[in-house]
Amino acid sequence: MSRDAFRAAVTNTLERRLFFVPSFKIYGGVAGLYDYGPPGCAVKANVLASWRQHFVLAEGMLEVDCPCVTPEVVLKASGHVDKFTDLMVKDEKTGNCYRADHLLKDFCKDKLEKDQTLSPEKAEEYNRILAILDDLSAEQLGAKIREYGIVAPDTKNPLSDPYPFNLMFQTSIGPSGLSAGYMRPETAQGIFVNFKDLYYYNGNKLPFAAAQIGQAFRNEISPRQGLLRVREFTLAEIEHFVDPEDKSHPKFGDVSDLEFLMFPREDQMAGRSATRLKIGNAVSEGTVNNETLGYFIGRVYLFLTQLGIDKDRLRFRQHLPNEMAHYAADCWDAEIECSYGWIECVGIADRSAYDLRAHSDKSGEKLEAHEKFAEPREVEKLVITPSKKELGLAFKGNQRMVLEALEAMGETEALDMKAALESKGEVEFKVCTLGKDVIIKKSMVSINIEKKKEHQRKFTPSVIEPSFGIGRIIYCLFEHCFYQRPGKTEDEQLNVFGFPPLVAPIKCTVFPLVKLEKFEVVAKKISKALTTAGISHIIDMTGNTIGKRYARTDEIGVPLAITVDNTTSVTVRDRDSKDQIRVEVDEVASVVKEVMDGQSTWADIMWRYPAHTASAAEDEEPEP
Amino acid sequence: MSRDAFRAAVTNTLERRLFFVPSFKIYGGVAGLYDYGPPGCAVKANVLASWRQHFVLAEGMLEVDCPCVTPEVVLKASGHVDKFTDLMVKDEKTGNCYRADHLLKDFCKDKLEKDQTLSPEKAEEYNRILAILDDLSAEQLGAKIREYGIVAPDTKNPLSDPYPFNLMFQTSIGPSGLSAGYMRPETAQGIFVNFKDLYYYNGNKLPFAAAQIGQAFRNEISPRQGLLRVREFTLAEIEHFVDPEDKSHPKFGDVSDLEFLMFPREDQMAGRSATRLKIGNAVSEGTVNNETLGYFIGRVYLFLTQLGIDKDRLRFRQHLPNEMAHYAADCWDAEIECSYGWIECVGIADRSAYDLRAHSDKSGEKLEAHEKFAEPREVEKLVITPSKKELGLAFKGNQRMVLEALEAMGETEALDMKAALESKGEVEFKVCTLGKDVIIKKSMVSINIEKKKEHQRKFTPSVIEPSFGIGRIIYCLFEHCFYQRPGKTEDEQLNVFGFPPLVAPIKCTVFPLVKLEKFEVVAKKISKALTTAGISHIIDMTGNTIGKRYARTDEIGVPLAITVDNTTSVTVRDRDSKDQIRVEVDEVASVVKEVMDGQSTWADIMWRYPAHTASAAEDEEPEP
Repeated sequence: MSRDAFRAAVTNTLERRLFFVPSFKIYGGVAGLYDYGPPGCAVKANVLASWRQHFVLAEGMLEVDCPCVTPEVVLKASGHVDKFTDLMVKDEKTGNCYRADHLLKDFCKDKLEKDQTLSPEKAEEYNRILAILDDLSAEQLGAKIREYGIVAPDTKNPLSDPYPFNLMFQTSIGPSGLSAGYMRPETAQGIFVNFKDLYYYNGNKLPFAAAQIGQAFRNEISPRQGLLRVREFTLAEIEHFVDPEDKSHPKFGDVSDLEFLMFPREDQMAGRSATRLKIGNAVSEGTVNNETLGYFIGRVYLFLTQLGIDKDRLRFRQHLPNEMAHYAADCWDAEIECSYGWIECVGIADRSAYDLRAHSDKSGEKLEAHEKFAEPREVEKLVITPSKKELGLAFKGNQRMVLEALEAMGETEALDMKAALESKGEVEFKVCTLGKDVIIKKSMVSINIEKKKEHQRKFTPSVIEPSFGIGRIIYCLFEHCFYQRPGKTEDEQLNVFGFPPLVAPIKCTVFPLVKLEKFEVVAKKISKALTTAGISHIIDMTGNTIGKRYARTDEIGVPLAITVDNTTSVTVRDRDSKDQIRVEVDEVASVVKEVMDGQSTWADIMWRYPAHTASAAEDEEPEP
Repeated sequence: MSRDAFRAAVTNTLERRLFFVPSFKIYGGVAGLYDYGPPGCAVKANVLASWRQHFVLAEGMLEVDCPCVTPEVVLKASGHVDKFTDLMVKDEKTGNCYRADHLLKDFCKDKLEKDQTLSPEKAEEYNRILAILDDLSAEQLGAKIREYGIVAPDTKNPLSDPYPFNLMFQTSIGPSGLSAGYMRPETAQGIFVNFKDLYYYNGNKLPFAAAQIGQAFRNEISPRQGLLRVREFTLAEIEHFVDPEDKSHPKFGDVSDLEFLMFPREDQMAGRSATRLKIGNAVSEGTVNNETLGYFIGRVYLFLTQLGIDKDRLRFRQHLPNEMAHYAADCWDAEIECSYGWIECVGIADRSAYDLRAHSDKSGEKLEAHEKFAEPREVEKLVITPSKKELGLAFKGNQRMVLEALEAMGETEALDMKAALESKGEVEFKVCTLGKDVIIKKSMVSINIEKKKEHQRKFTPSVIEPSFGIGRIIYCLFEHCFYQRPGKTEDEQLNVFGFPPLVAPIKCTVFPLVKLEKFEVVAKKISKALTTAGISHIIDMTGNTIGKRYARTDEIGVPLAITVDNTTSVTVRDRDSKDQIRVEVDEVASVVKEVMDGQSTWADIMWRYPAHTASAAEDEEPEP
C-alpha cells in the first residue's frame, strides 16, 4: 500500500470512529484545530498518565501547572515577542497569506519531481535550496520567489515580499486594554520564572527537575499535515536544572546499555544514514554532550517504545549547527517515521544557562544556585573600590554612572587601568551610559587583586529540556498501531488498532452471545467486577453478530473481548491473534486485569486456560 | 479564630509550601492568575482523576477534548459575544476600571457595618439594594452610584457611567487578522457543536452524557478572593442529553436515600435556612424538577464528600427565578462554605433544549434526536400543499418567498386561511420576506388535516449540565482539611492538612531515623516496593529530627510516615491521630497501599499490628 493510501485508511478510521474530528465542524471548522472524541481522549489520558508515571513520579520531578495567558514581559524576556516568527507572503490582491518557505519548497519539489526537462545544474540548485531552506533570510527568500516567478497558488496573483509574522495568539489582559498578553507558545517559561521557589522547595539542592503538562498555542500561517501541525496542542515539558560543571547523572547506568537508532550530526553531514548506537558509548565517545542529556534520551526511548512506537521507526537525530540556538550545548530530536516522513516528536536540548539568565536580567530577580564548599576555598578576586567622595566632587550628577561603569569593568580592563593610573596618575575612561570619555584620577578608585576565602560558589544552573509534543506522538502511535486484515469476503479489509494495553482507550468489551436474560445477568456481573478492578470497558447488548461486534471493537483497539456464551464460563478473545480461551465467570475480571496491568502477557494466559474453538454461530463475520 | 485569621493561616501555609503561588511573581504577578506548585498540582491531578473515575468511567460518559481557541461564530450562537459581560465603570482621570456592582455593594455594606447614625429607612434601602444587586441594569446602577456620590476607591476621582465589558479574552485566528476568536469561557460549547457525532457514536440512543475537562478563561475586571475568582481556571463539565419527555434516570435509586443540606427557592424567599432533605423526596415532591437532575445532585454530593469536603458545610441551593436563564427548567448550585462565605463550586442546571437549538439555528445543521416507535403511530397532521404553477403565474420572481411563507404557517393561521378561502375564495396574506401583503386565491394552496402513520418522533434533546469549578473545589478542600495543633512550646501552632488518601499529594514518606547506612538501605528497599505498588512517596534523608520531619510532611498533608528505626521492622505513623504501629519491612508497602486504596482504614490497621511507643529520642518536636 502507498503512503498516501495507508494514511487515508488510518485517518478515515480515526475520524469515522471519532478518535478525532475537525473542531467546530458544523460551522465549517477552523484550520489547525481538532477535537479528540471519546477514544482519542482516552488514548490521550493514558499517554499523559504514562508520562506522569514514567517521568514525574519515577524521577521525583516537581510538577507545576501555570496559566496559558502570559503577560508580554515574560515572552519579551524569553525572546518570543521578537523572534517567534515565520516569514509570510501575501497574495497582493486577495490578502491570502502563505508561508514563504513553504511556497519555495513546494516549487522546488515540484520541479524536481515533475519537470522532465530539468538540467542537472538546475536540479542541483533546487536541491541545495531545499537543504538550506531554514537558513534563508526574508531578503533571500524574497529574491528566490521573484527569480522563480512564484505566485499565489490559489489565484496566480503576485505575492508581497516576505515579512515576519509572530506566531503567538495575542490578547489583552484586564479591562483597560493596555496590558498586552499572549497565549503561551510553550509551557517552559512558567517553570523558569518559578525557579527560585522550586529550588527552595527542593531544599536548595541541584540537580532537580520540574515538569509541566499543558496547552500551548501557535497561530500557524497555514496549518498542514493534519494532527502534526496544529494551532493548539498539548505539551509535556521537563526542565532539569543541573550544575554546568557537573552534568553527570546518578541513574545513567540504568539506561547506558540501551541500543537504538541515532543520527549524529557528522553522519547527517556526510550523507550517511542513522545507525544503531549504545547510548552509553554515544556519551563516553562525546557524540552526546553529557550523561544527563544521554539519560533523558534513553528514558525517552523507553517511554515511546512502551507506548507502542515501533523502535525501527524511531531515531534520535542531533541538531545540525545551523538548527541549534547559539546558546545550546547540544540538542537531539526524537523523530518518528510516519506517512509524512520523519517527524520531530520530542526535543531534548541542553539549553545551558540561557533561559534563567534571560529572566534574571529582565526581572532583576537573581535566578541562581549555590554550592556550599565542605572547606572554604581561597580564591583570587578582583576588587574595585571607587571613592564616592572623589567621584562626587569631580562628576556631580553623573557620579552614579561613572561609579557603575568602574565597578562593571572586566579583569583585563581593570588591570590595564590600574597600571595606567600607577604610571600616569590619570586615564581616559569611556562611560557608555554618558556617551563620552571622562578622566579618572588615581584618587578616585582603588583596584586590587585580593585573596579571599569563599564558602560557596554561586552560579546560574544549566537546563536540560526534554519537550514532548503529545499530539504528534499520539498521531504517530495511531499510524504505528494500525493494520488491516482480510474480512470474510476477499476484497474486504478489516481495520485494527493494535494498541498495547497501556494506551488502549477501552481495555475490554463484554458481549452476551445472544439476547438472553441469563447471559445479560452474567454480563452485568462481569461488568461490575471490571469496574471494581478499575478496568475501563463497555457492555454491548445490541444483539449484532459476534463477528460484527469484534470488528467494531478491533477498530478502536480494544485488546480483549469477553463473550458470555454460558453462565459459568465465558470466552475471552485476544484482538491481535484472535485466539480464544475459556475462563470461569468469577475469575475473568482478574485475568483481564493481569494482562492490562502488564503482569502477564496474552501468551502467559494462553498456557493456563483451555482454548475455545468457535462454533459456526459465533464465527467472526465482517461488518456489513 | 476569626475567619480572616483562619484564612491567613491557610493561605500562608499554601503559599509557603508551594501549593500555589501568584503567577509570574518575579515580574510582579498578574491579578487573577495563579500557578499550582508541586503539592497543589498533585492534589489537582488527584481531584481530576477522581472526577474521571466517579463520572466518566462509572457512568460510561463520552469524554472529549476540544481546543480553547474558539471562532467567533460559535460564541455568537451561544450568546457569549453579546451577553457575557459585567458592568464596568472607569475612573474618569486615571482610566482605572472597576465592577460597578462591586462598588455599590461595598458602599452599602460599609454603611450598614460602620455608620452608627444610619436611619432604619436607610438601612432597609441598603439591604434591599444588596438583595437585588444582580438584577440592576446599567442605568439603575449608574443612578445609584451618582445618588450616593460613589467615587473611585483608590483616587476619589469621579466615575464614568456603567457600561458592559465583555469578559472573554479576544484574539485573532490565522495571519490575516480578519477572523476574530476568543479563549473559551466554558468547555460546554465544544460538546454541543459535536452533538451529532456523539449521538451517532452512542448508537443514536438517548440518554447519554458527554464530558470535558479543560481550561476556561474569563477576563475579570478586577479579580478578588484569591483562588476563587481567577482569569484562567480548570472546568470539568458534563452535558447529559435526555428526551425532554422522559427525564427519569435508571440509577436514581442508587442515590435516592441520600440526605443532605438543600436550600430550595421557597425557603430562601421565606427567609428560612437550608434543611436536610432526602434527594428522593425532593424529586418526588417536585422540589427538584426531575430524576436526572436529582441523580446528578446526589452524585455531586458523593463526589465532593469523598474528596474531603465537610458535609455540614456543603449545601445545594436552588436558583431564584431572577438568577435563572429564561430557558432553564431548574438549576441548583453546590455551594461550599469557606472563609469567604458560601461559594458556588458546582452548577447543576437543566438547560432544556436551548444550546442545541441555538447551534442548530446558527449553523443550519440539525442537532436532533429521534425515537423510533415500536408500532407506527397514527397522528393528525397539518398538510399545506402550495401549487407551484399557480404561484409562479401570480408572483413570478417572488414565487419562492410566497411559497416558503405559506409552508411556514402555524396550525391556527393555516386553518384560519383555509376557512377564509372556503368562504371568500381569496385572502390577504403577509409575506415578511417581501415586506408586504399578497392576495392568496383558493387555487394556490390546499390546506388539510390528514391522518398519517408516523414511525418515529424527532426532537431536540434537553441537556442537564453539571459544571465543576475545579479550582474553587480545591480551594474549599484546602480550607476544610486544614487544622492546627499545639507544638512543643505553648504558643506554637503546627499546621496540618488532613487530606483523605484519595487527594493527598504524596501518600507516604520514608525517613531513616538516623543517618546510618543500614537504615538508608532499608529505606531505599521500601521506596522501591512503594514505587512498584504505585504509591507516590518521598524519602527524606536530610537527617533533621523526626519531629521536624513529621511537622514538615503534616503541613503538606502526607497521611502516613514510615520511620526506619530497625532493619527488620519499621514504625508507621498516622498523620491525624499520631498513632504509631510496628510493621515488618517486607509488609509495609502493601499495608500502606491497603490504606491508600481505601480497602482498609487506619483504625482497621491499628487492630492488626502492635503499637509503637515513641522513645524520647524520636519524640515529635516542633519545627524551629
